[in-house]
Amino acid sequence: METSEQFSNKQKQISISEFFEKNKHFLGFDTLQRSIITAVKEAVDNSLDACEETRILPEIRVEINRLKGDRIELITQDNGPGIPRNDIENVFGKFLLGSRFHAIRQTRGQQGIGITGVVMYSQLTAGSKTQVISKIGSDSSAVYVELGIDTRKNRATKSGERREIWLDDLTGDPVLHGLRIRTVMRAKYQRGRQSVHQYLRMTSIVNPHASISLVVRDRNGEMIEEGNWARTTEKLPREVSEIKPHPHGIHLGSLQRLLREAEERKMTSFLRHNFSGVSMRAARDILAAAGIDEGRTPRRIRAEEAQEMVSAFQKVKLLAPPTDCLSPIEDLLIKKGLSKAIDSRFASTITRNPKVSNGNPFQIEVGLVFGGNLSAEGPIEVLRFANRVPLMYQQGGCLLTKALEAVDWKRYGLEHPGGRGIPKGPAAVLVHLASTNVQFTSEAKEAVADNEEVFEEIRLAMLEVGRGLKNHLKKNSQRKKAREKFELINIILPEISRKSSQLLSREEPDLAPVITKIMDAVFCEEELDWDDERKLAICSITVYNYTARARAYTILAKWPEEDGVRIDENALGGRKEAKGLWAWRLDTLNPGSSTTIFFTVSGLTKGEWSEVDVFYRGNGEVIGATKIDEKLLDELRKTEALAAAELELEQQTETMGHLSDRAEHNSPDPATEPTEQVQPTLFDNYEAEE
Amino acid sequence: METSEQFSNKQKQISISEFFEKNKHFLGFDTLQRSIITAVKEAVDNSLDACEETRILPEIRVEINRLKGDRIELITQDNGPGIPRNDIENVFGKFLLGSRFHAIRQTRGQQGIGITGVVMYSQLTAGSKTQVISKIGSDSSAVYVELGIDTRKNRATKSGERREIWLDDLTGDPVLHGLRIRTVMRAKYQRGRQSVHQYLRMTSIVNPHASISLVVRDRNGEMIEEGNWARTTEKLPREVSEIKPHPHGIHLGSLQRLLREAEERKMTSFLRHNFSGVSMRAARDILAAAGIDEGRTPRRIRAEEAQEMVSAFQKVKLLAPPTDCLSPIEDLLIKKGLSKAIDSRFASTITRNPKVSNGNPFQIEVGLVFGGNLSAEGPIEVLRFANRVPLMYQQGGCLLTKALEAVDWKRYGLEHPGGRGIPKGPAAVLVHLASTNVQFTSEAKEAVADNEEVFEEIRLAMLEVGRGLKNHLKKNSQRKKAREKFELINIILPEISRKSSQLLSREEPDLAPVITKIMDAVFCEEELDWDDERKLAICSITVYNYTARARAYTILAKWPEEDGVRIDENALGGRKEAKGLWAWRLDTLNPGSSTTIFFTVSGLTKGEWSEVDVFYRGNGEVIGATKIDEKLLDELRKTEALAAAELELEQQTETMGHLSDRAEHNSPDPATEPTEQVQPTLFDNYEAEE
Repeated sequence: METSEQFSNKQKQISISEFFEKNKHFLGFDTLQRSIITAVKEAVDNSLDACEETRILPEIRVEINRLKGDRIELITQDNGPGIPRNDIENVFGKFLLGSRFHAIRQTRGQQGIGITGVVMYSQLTAGSKTQVISKIGSDSSAVYVELGIDTRKNRATKSGERREIWLDDLTGDPVLHGLRIRTVMRAKYQRGRQSVHQYLRMTSIVNPHASISLVVRDRNGEMIEEGNWARTTEKLPREVSEIKPHPHGIHLGSLQRLLREAEERKMTSFLRHNFSGVSMRAARDILAAAGIDEGRTPRRIRAEEAQEMVSAFQKVKLLAPPTDCLSPIEDLLIKKGLSKAIDSRFASTITRNPKVSNGNPFQIEVGLVFGGNLSAEGPIEVLRFANRVPLMYQQGGCLLTKALEAVDWKRYGLEHPGGRGIPKGPAAVLVHLASTNVQFTSEAKEAVADNEEVFEEIRLAMLEVGRGLKNHLKKNSQRKKAREKFELINIILPEISRKSSQLLSREEPDLAPVITKIMDAVFCEEELDWDDERKLAICSITVYNYTARARAYTILAKWPEEDGVRIDENALGGRKEAKGLWAWRLDTLNPGSSTTIFFTVSGLTKGEWSEVDVFYRGNGEVIGATKIDEKLLDELRKTEALAAAELELEQQTETMGHLSDRAEHNSPDPATEPTEQVQPTLFDNYEAEE
Repeated sequence: METSEQFSNKQKQISISEFFEKNKHFLGFDTLQRSIITAVKEAVDNSLDACEETRILPEIRVEINRLKGDRIELITQDNGPGIPRNDIENVFGKFLLGSRFHAIRQTRGQQGIGITGVVMYSQLTAGSKTQVISKIGSDSSAVYVELGIDTRKNRATKSGERREIWLDDLTGDPVLHGLRIRTVMRAKYQRGRQSVHQYLRMTSIVNPHASISLVVRDRNGEMIEEGNWARTTEKLPREVSEIKPHPHGIHLGSLQRLLREAEERKMTSFLRHNFSGVSMRAARDILAAAGIDEGRTPRRIRAEEAQEMVSAFQKVKLLAPPTDCLSPIEDLLIKKGLSKAIDSRFASTITRNPKVSNGNPFQIEVGLVFGGNLSAEGPIEVLRFANRVPLMYQQGGCLLTKALEAVDWKRYGLEHPGGRGIPKGPAAVLVHLASTNVQFTSEAKEAVADNEEVFEEIRLAMLEVGRGLKNHLKKNSQRKKAREKFELINIILPEISRKSSQLLSREEPDLAPVITKIMDAVFCEEELDWDDERKLAICSITVYNYTARARAYTILAKWPEEDGVRIDENALGGRKEAKGLWAWRLDTLNPGSSTTIFFTVSGLTKGEWSEVDVFYRGNGEVIGATKIDEKLLDELRKTEALAAAELELEQQTETMGHLSDRAEHNSPDPATEPTEQVQPTLFDNYEAEE
């Protein structure tokens, strides 16, 4: 029998490098196929982060060459800021060394694990050093160095360091700034849904400001795959600021550490300096609620008092944390990205307002495309992204998928057997979670861990795009029915009429009033085309009056109004009713007649606008259009006016500092807050469903 | 614009404690509901491991008390070996400090993370210290100490240490050896499928040698839930030995490190000492294939030569690694455990032979139960285990689930819409992966990462139990049909006969020959009952001859033969045909007659034997029994004789050391090895399916 002493004498400290070497599957190096994708991902994420932080439009090249056996050479190069000489070995050769670990803002990498994992995997499986060339703007030459890892000590081993002028492979010009990595590893290159190509393609969807290229060569040097994703916008993602933690997310243990290490002398300053969302008034309220004197020294606060503070954080009204730490992709770019990648008939996107979970701001964006070339067989395609990084593995275990599955898609027109799992049909759904702290289930960052608030936000976003889909399908089906009825009547009635006239030797009667009477409907048909030559979206809306009475309508259409986008040709004139909403008053429409509104919109690119929402004002129903909700329209106009006024005010007071007019909000336990209802939006006279 | 220098100056080493504090969801502390389960799991796993290593039959008590707010007090206590005073702070207060990290053998914990995570979570969320009482057998008193973690430095903070006689709470007696942990944390206690209760229940299924109890109390001290799982066997799991790595799983980088640190002077000794599965001949073959002199000094081997060695490892015939590093649960105990937990009609279990993946021995066990109280609605229940630890989260992302889903269950009698996902029906499947290196997707150890060889083994095991289910269902359905036919004929024929006899005023004819002619079948019905008073399994097998000719058969039945289990009453006598297979030669069976075999089996417990497989030898078909395959039976007998001879030989040569007669095997790339076919087994004249 082994005694407990013998047992414990073997206790030994394991270095973090040894830990990850043994558990390389935690980092995404579980199979040969996945390892190359993981390596590309870590390099590209770093490049995109570095470019974004230094406000450079990224140019990223990925080169993959198959070598003897199951070894692969990977080369990545960017035009980022480069890494200063003294930091290179730490970035590549040391786990858990990072600049962003404690910062609260949206970034792709955070933990100081990714690229070090690549160096480790390369050394472990191919016994290979990783070659790095780094050029920073202020140096005249680039640093060349080869790196490995001493896993027992978690530190880099360095060799062959030298300085040289770095000439670009393709252009031959000296490189101003950038980073090039070359490494060899055991891996298997494959095509298809889980491939480097797909990873980069998806990356380009959510990073439209990046230009990315891929070349893959076989052992004989022959190119076997390539990809070229040019940027579709010159606009860099919003610059994100670092924020302080919000009291709502603070654990007792963290508060105690902050108190212990505080240099402030008074509790009010302590609260104001260390947290976001705490005004002077809020600080006083918190201290009063916790029964702590404002003048107390933070370091002297006792455990029970800290516990009282944590309770007070949940009771006192606090400002929401600032959300300039987040960088959403935004509706239009999502639509653009999706339609670049997927050929579909209908697209609906939504960027929700930022929310807070455990003190971490986050924001959900969802896009849904339907029809077109998408396969109607099998489950819909799910594209998952976290902080602009595609997630390609562990779909089933990911919160983003679970929230999608929690929606009853049958209500929104997709097949959803048993209401479980991924719905079926010719659709694809994109989900993007932007957060200062994406909680993944593991270091490989492929699946988001459970979180009730994030789940609920995604679900609500899904309901919104789902409703768009439902309306689209409903409109289509109504129109199809009306058209079928119309065609039927137009064929059969004259037929009957002719036969019976012949039989009775009478003249054929005028059928128009009869047809109108049978149809007894007004219907509206819109068409949206893209003129590739003139770079114009061409829209026509036709209203048919198949009723027995004359009709009068105002027709309204949603269009993607923004800077640089405008309505060009528009013979009927009309007027702006609200931002993105144009209205035309039609002349009286007689029974059996129709009229057409025709207009063009310039300043868009293909795919940015794929569906016209048509509304009407007038009596009765118009099949294919939605009656406008005047009350909501009024509210919208007010909000707009308010926003404009606020903008003006903000510009005036900008020099006065960051005085926030945001309403203070009090957030009780979010689990108990009723969140079942979706706020109705202007263009949606949504009714309770069966 | 932030320059690259500014950016990189913020680089900072993060301690592993800080890393896990920020990423506590990696450790299973993502929601309040899950956190308490994770904490119980870590404590119980440690207790079971420590008891197993020191060969103690474990007695584990778990006590949960709800406190004010969302805080919970957790107390766990075991009768394990205890932890020596000087090691306590390292075990509880330091991440990545472990005794088993480098050892190759099957254990529950390995990484030195689990229980330290509990101490960290308790400190973070409740600001609470963890109280530990440890008593080792050789000390006269127990150590009392309170522990926290200094996360910046990854080390324990210790207070209030003292020595005292530890008296057991329940008995009041001094505790001889054991460990007691008390901690407070933010958590939410819940019941149901994902609960502490369910976790302990599942743990008891695969650890039948452990006695486990649970008490949960509300804030007012009232007991709201309890559980008591007594051990069902006194047999401790097989003692596992530590083995050396097998060359098949060695990466180039690891080999290079071993070479660098080698103290051997010759390459042959290096290979023999550092690896398992390498005989002297194999060592010579490897060196010859790699072009390396046997006498070379390991430390002088160059990188290219090491690469050649790695290639040679795959080419040269090597012994399989020893599998005494594994401890499977074994068929009988799985069946016992399953039938203790689930009331079902049919159970089929399989323990596959150990296999090797990347040099790591592993073994798959699967159990399937069907019918009884199991719900026919919805997907079947999947019980996942790795190294005797229940996996309760991330079911969708787990290799064990994926392998189950890869089987076409429709062929085996379960509903499986679209052949995707979890099949439906009144069944539950248990999967156990025993391995020296279970590769989880994260530190929380809830899902197994992808691995082709493990996947294939599970799939094959599923096919085997699936075939059992299919035969069971087929037999049931055949019998049901025959019985229906029989009943119908027995009702209708006499009816017709009577009517027509009356009509014709004739005497009724003897119908027996007619009925026999119409039925024209022999059928066999067995019944298995459990006599709870006498602790006997009671089995009867009845054969009916509904054909026109006299019949003669030998009937054979499978029974769970092993030490201590024997056939008691058995009026017909018969003889043993092979291990676990008894045969009775029946007297000639005349048309229209039947005969019954009746026997009892003692030495079993309820649920251990739930299904009798019946075979026959003779002409024609017997509905409800399977014709025995004489060729396979012969082979089985030979194997048995061989095994007996080997056992004798082994006992003779035991003193001569560990001379292995195992055949050397050469394992090519397993991915290319055809593994589609399942070996037919004796009791299975399995045919190609539609």
